[in-house]
Amino acid sequence: MIVVMKQGATPDQVQHMVRQVESLGLKAHVIVGAERTVIAAVGVKRDGNKESLESGPGVAEVVPISAPYKVASREVKPERTVVTAGSLSVGGNQIGVIAGPCSVETEKQILACAVAVREAGATALRGGAFKPRTSPYSFQGLKEDGLKMLAAARDATGLAIVTEVVASEDVDLVAKYAEVLQIGARNMQNYRLLEAVGRTERAVLLKRGPSATVEELLLAAEYILDAGNPNVMLCERGVRTFEAHTRFTLPLATVPYLHQKTHLPVVVDPSHGTGHAYLVPDMCTASVAAGADGLIIEVHPDPENALSDGYQTLNFEQFKQVMRRCRKVAEALDKTL
Amino acid sequence: MIVVMKQGATPDQVQHMVRQVESLGLKAHVIVGAERTVIAAVGVKRDGNKESLESGPGVAEVVPISAPYKVASREVKPERTVVTAGSLSVGGNQIGVIAGPCSVETEKQILACAVAVREAGATALRGGAFKPRTSPYSFQGLKEDGLKMLAAARDATGLAIVTEVVASEDVDLVAKYAEVLQIGARNMQNYRLLEAVGRTERAVLLKRGPSATVEELLLAAEYILDAGNPNVMLCERGVRTFEAHTRFTLPLATVPYLHQKTHLPVVVDPSHGTGHAYLVPDMCTASVAAGADGLIIEVHPDPENALSDGYQTLNFEQFKQVMRRCRKVAEALDKTL
Amino acid sequence: MIVVMKQGATPDQVQHMVRQVESLGLKAHVIVGAERTVIAAVGVKRDGNKESLESGPGVAEVVPISAPYKVASREVKPERTVVTAGSLSVGGNQIGVIAGPCSVETEKQILACAVAVREAGATALRGGAFKPRTSPYSFQGLKEDGLKMLAAARDATGLAIVTEVVASEDVDLVAKYAEVLQIGARNMQNYRLLEAVGRTERAVLLKRGPSATVEELLLAAEYILDAGNPNVMLCERGVRTFEAHTRFTLPLATVPYLHQKTHLPVVVDPSHGTGHAYLVPDMCTASVAAGADGLIIEVHPDPENALSDGYQTLNFEQFKQVMRRCRKVAEALDKTL
Amino acid sequence: MIVVMKQGATPDQVQHMVRQVESLGLKAHVIVGAERTVIAAVGVKRDGNKESLESGPGVAEVVPISAPYKVASREVKPERTVVTAGSLSVGGNQIGVIAGPCSVETEKQILACAVAVREAGATALRGGAFKPRTSPYSFQGLKEDGLKMLAAARDATGLAIVTEVVASEDVDLVAKYAEVLQIGARNMQNYRLLEAVGRTERAVLLKRGPSATVEELLLAAEYILDAGNPNVMLCERGVRTFEAHTRFTLPLATVPYLHQKTHLPVVVDPSHGTGHAYLVPDMCTASVAAGADGLIIEVHPDPENALSDGYQTLNFEQFKQVMRRCRKVAEALDKTL
Repeated sequence: MIVVMKQGATPDQVQHMVRQVESLGLKAHVIVGAERTVIAAVGVKRDGNKESLESGPGVAEVVPISAPYKVASREVKPERTVVTAGSLSVGGNQIGVIAGPCSVETEKQILACAVAVREAGATALRGGAFKPRTSPYSFQGLKEDGLKMLAAARDATGLAIVTEVVASEDVDLVAKYAEVLQIGARNMQNYRLLEAVGRTERAVLLKRGPSATVEELLLAAEYILDAGNPNVMLCERGVRTFEAHTRFTLPLATVPYLHQKTHLPVVVDPSHGTGHAYLVPDMCTASVAAGADGLIIEVHPDPENALSDGYQTLNFEQFKQVMRRCRKVAEALDKTL
Repeated sequence: MIVVMKQGATPDQVQHMVRQVESLGLKAHVIVGAERTVIAAVGVKRDGNKESLESGPGVAEVVPISAPYKVASREVKPERTVVTAGSLSVGGNQIGVIAGPCSVETEKQILACAVAVREAGATALRGGAFKPRTSPYSFQGLKEDGLKMLAAARDATGLAIVTEVVASEDVDLVAKYAEVLQIGARNMQNYRLLEAVGRTERAVLLKRGPSATVEELLLAAEYILDAGNPNVMLCERGVRTFEAHTRFTLPLATVPYLHQKTHLPVVVDPSHGTGHAYLVPDMCTASVAAGADGLIIEVHPDPENALSDGYQTLNFEQFKQVMRRCRKVAEALDKTL
Repeated sequence: MIVVMKQGATPDQVQHMVRQVESLGLKAHVIVGAERTVIAAVGVKRDGNKESLESGPGVAEVVPISAPYKVASREVKPERTVVTAGSLSVGGNQIGVIAGPCSVETEKQILACAVAVREAGATALRGGAFKPRTSPYSFQGLKEDGLKMLAAARDATGLAIVTEVVASEDVDLVAKYAEVLQIGARNMQNYRLLEAVGRTERAVLLKRGPSATVEELLLAAEYILDAGNPNVMLCERGVRTFEAHTRFTLPLATVPYLHQKTHLPVVVDPSHGTGHAYLVPDMCTASVAAGADGLIIEVHPDPENALSDGYQTLNFEQFKQVMRRCRKVAEALDKTL
Repeated sequence: MIVVMKQGATPDQVQHMVRQVESLGLKAHVIVGAERTVIAAVGVKRDGNKESLESGPGVAEVVPISAPYKVASREVKPERTVVTAGSLSVGGNQIGVIAGPCSVETEKQILACAVAVREAGATALRGGAFKPRTSPYSFQGLKEDGLKMLAAARDATGLAIVTEVVASEDVDLVAKYAEVLQIGARNMQNYRLLEAVGRTERAVLLKRGPSATVEELLLAAEYILDAGNPNVMLCERGVRTFEAHTRFTLPLATVPYLHQKTHLPVVVDPSHGTGHAYLVPDMCTASVAAGADGLIIEVHPDPENALSDGYQTLNFEQFKQVMRRCRKVAEALDKTL
């Protein structure tokens, strides 16, 4: 941490800040520059410091140096983590593909999806049973009935189940049916929920909040890791920007950036990331070429009549073609899919 | 809802979309323009429609016309709502002021704050007992002990208590001690929590998420209203943008905009909205001049040594001066504070 | 500037970076921390350094410490600058008000505006003769004919003229007719144009680009100041964010922030900053309460039939009321208007 | 265009708006809905309308339906445009690659770059002679001397030259030396400059402004096309968002989106789009997989000692590897590079 003093800060103000830095258990190095004095604070305490120091007399700003996450950091664990959950493996040389409808609607629908996506090469089935919806008047999901339908589809196809859990009180129930617990973007900073999934033995797919920084995403992962669960997959699903021609803006540079900072695998969601079915195929191939460890894609037998998210959902034939193209790109880069 | 067809859409495609619109219980008006055909869908079903229609053949885009919130809408209830909770009243001619520390730290600290802010004119006391923190390693609050200290401060000063609740399972506990349940920005779309506070008789202060649209904020309010609780105050606390010189960007135009769209009162949080104590005073007067119904301000006896948020917190003397200036601005605009 | 080395950077890498820092004429202080080494680079060269250092071996990041602007900085010139141009004075105790139509349309229109806004208390007349328009098919302004109409309005009312110049080759022409040369938001980084107005003796109103940081705004001002023209007014006119209910997001905290960083006066444009006439009045009072040194407001005799920007334009009666309320707020804060 | 009336708008207000719509030469269809009335305005006038209609009595909002660009639209010209300029061809089955240093520094440097990038497979050479710089104190380029060095490098290697022009008065000079005139992001809405390059016979590489919408980018292209120059390449180079770990956020979904809306080819700039050399390779392959028609990449013999942009620049060996991987991805998708 660097405490930058204002031009004209007095020696007393500098001394005061040195004492403040030392009171945090850190060592203070005072560097007198041509224009201003800075105090470099060296040591291992990482948290909370910035909050109070900036209020000190004569302080211009406080610049953090160390990242505040620890267990998620690749500096701490250089080798990449591979998360395995039933048929799904993410983080190794093979790219994992999670596909299925936004919402579980009927037993027939979810089974048809499972069969179709497995045939096209998907390695896990997605489907929402608990649906967090922006409007209280929208379809909210089939709840436990939906979970049962997912389990039946798994039994029929062997595909691991990825489904969202929206409240800590539901974690045990969802964990009974699914291999992977998904934390939705709206809940990325629902810390009680993060702690609850952190106490299970299920793998977790943690979606980035639409305005979360990458550092905040890694700190959210840190809540899960810190609770004892090492099987965390990060998911880039687009951020909110001024761009209105897509539902969100999908920043694929997150993939190589996260690969530098963390050992956790990175999944991309081109369906939510674009919000338009006609943009999904090219963003799937682009995600693979950006180095994504996995994809999560919305697929439905009849998108036009889906109960939710139809506008960003592929039909079976479109999904098959996407898989074909993604596989070629993966192979060109010495990966498999 | 307007379904805009692509240039060159065929009559069959138009007919297909007319049937889709009618299957939603809406009436379809086909308008053939010089360049393209549009279908105006008229009727009362508001929800979910857009999701599937955009996937239809020959459709260029779907433009919603009606706002998706109902109970929160000023078109439905033109007269402004006044929320009253103990000493706090927000929405009438008097501007409510909620002040106090980010976190409850000790009995002495919170009592000193209560006395000081009441003396300066505040009408409610804020203080966090359950603290949602970005890092798992930051101070997480005193929990029920903190609630008890808040209640003691209320008993000593008469100030209503405003404090955050972070999980639906804590709602009853927090409601036992506090007049106002605060939903933090990170939880604005934690629907289970919204429903839980909606079932209490406590007033709710609902903070806007940092990347929530105003429509999403009103739909979150709708969850609370729809659960039976009419006492909702909306809170603008800044949005996330490319600007890095402030912690968030505080868009005060939200105040008059919300006053047009909803009957619910609007509170502004200049502390989180700027993230720097030296910017808070001018943003307080500006909020009053923008028409805010209330303010929520972080105040601490010694910000430099606060356990959280010190950088954006006023000391007692600064708060007193802010109140003096805000009062003058309020009176200039025929309000009181 | 602080060069932060990666964890595990070798002593050779650190030495290499020390030499790089010294080759820039700076002094290097090496600080060995518990987790990583940082090199503090001390000295007066401010520019360009960061660009190459980050490419060095073992470097994690480079953190700038000093602001890159000089002449605009309040650390260099602590006393506030007052810009005076004919009837307009901005930066002192009196708030300057620039009002008038988006575009000059007819002699009659601009004269009516001048008379009406002067009567309501405005101290300068705005009006566009050269109009930069997003679409090549929109009305592009009356050019020199418009300038002549503005000059006639000035002669009739005594109001200083504020009008936009869009290209360096037009600077002399516009400077012949107007007291204040406006640089529009789209041209904030048109450096050739900035240099050209910097060589005139006319005051300059420099609008912030919709995605410019405050630092970039001050560097743009630096181009003008560096060319020899000290009479620069900065203008906050809203930034582009994910918010779609306003045309731009108007971040009023820019006003007190700039007052800390620079001696130049700050004008706010609530018309462009909101894009909706019904939001302009409250944002005018809020701007005054935030400490703005001036306002620029679009006013037209008949907004519904204006050739440009009608949706964000006040009529004469609305402007009169805005002025009345702003005056009261200004007086409550010991200023005049 | 759809004029949405407020709930409770009177018949007189509706009639007034019908007349306003008709006065624009459009036909008005009044649709009376369950909750509100909307007026669909049908016809060919596209421009300026929205501006005044929103100010009308009883109007809630005005929703545009047709895109405001014409010549750039793929609805008008369905077949894709191929831009050819010397050795560079963009828009066909072969992906064009423009590579070279940010700034031309010396004859030796630019020649070495030209030879190296041609050998690796680039089809054009980039290099800045006129440099628009955020700070007036940064290196501003070699100007005409730099152009001459570029021309010499072209003569030696046969590579087409792509270089930026920053002012309309320089257009003839730059056009004398370069095959492609680049309009930088800061000048995307410098209309005088757009018109000037539109009057030349040189191809134009038009970079998207960092907060420009895609519609604004297409309208900027429209200025060039409308002036008579059909050889326009669009360039996505990243947008400004809240993300701070990259210099800009690179939204690759722009590529397939633009391919739907326009016939003009789309080039991606992963160097500016990320701002960090270590992110460039994966974003190059991702751009190819997203369907980009071309790439523009910063390459320098010694990035650590480059005069500008070193932090985002590849060295020769890195560029060679990038080209190898991009070629494999292109071939996997049945393209060449």
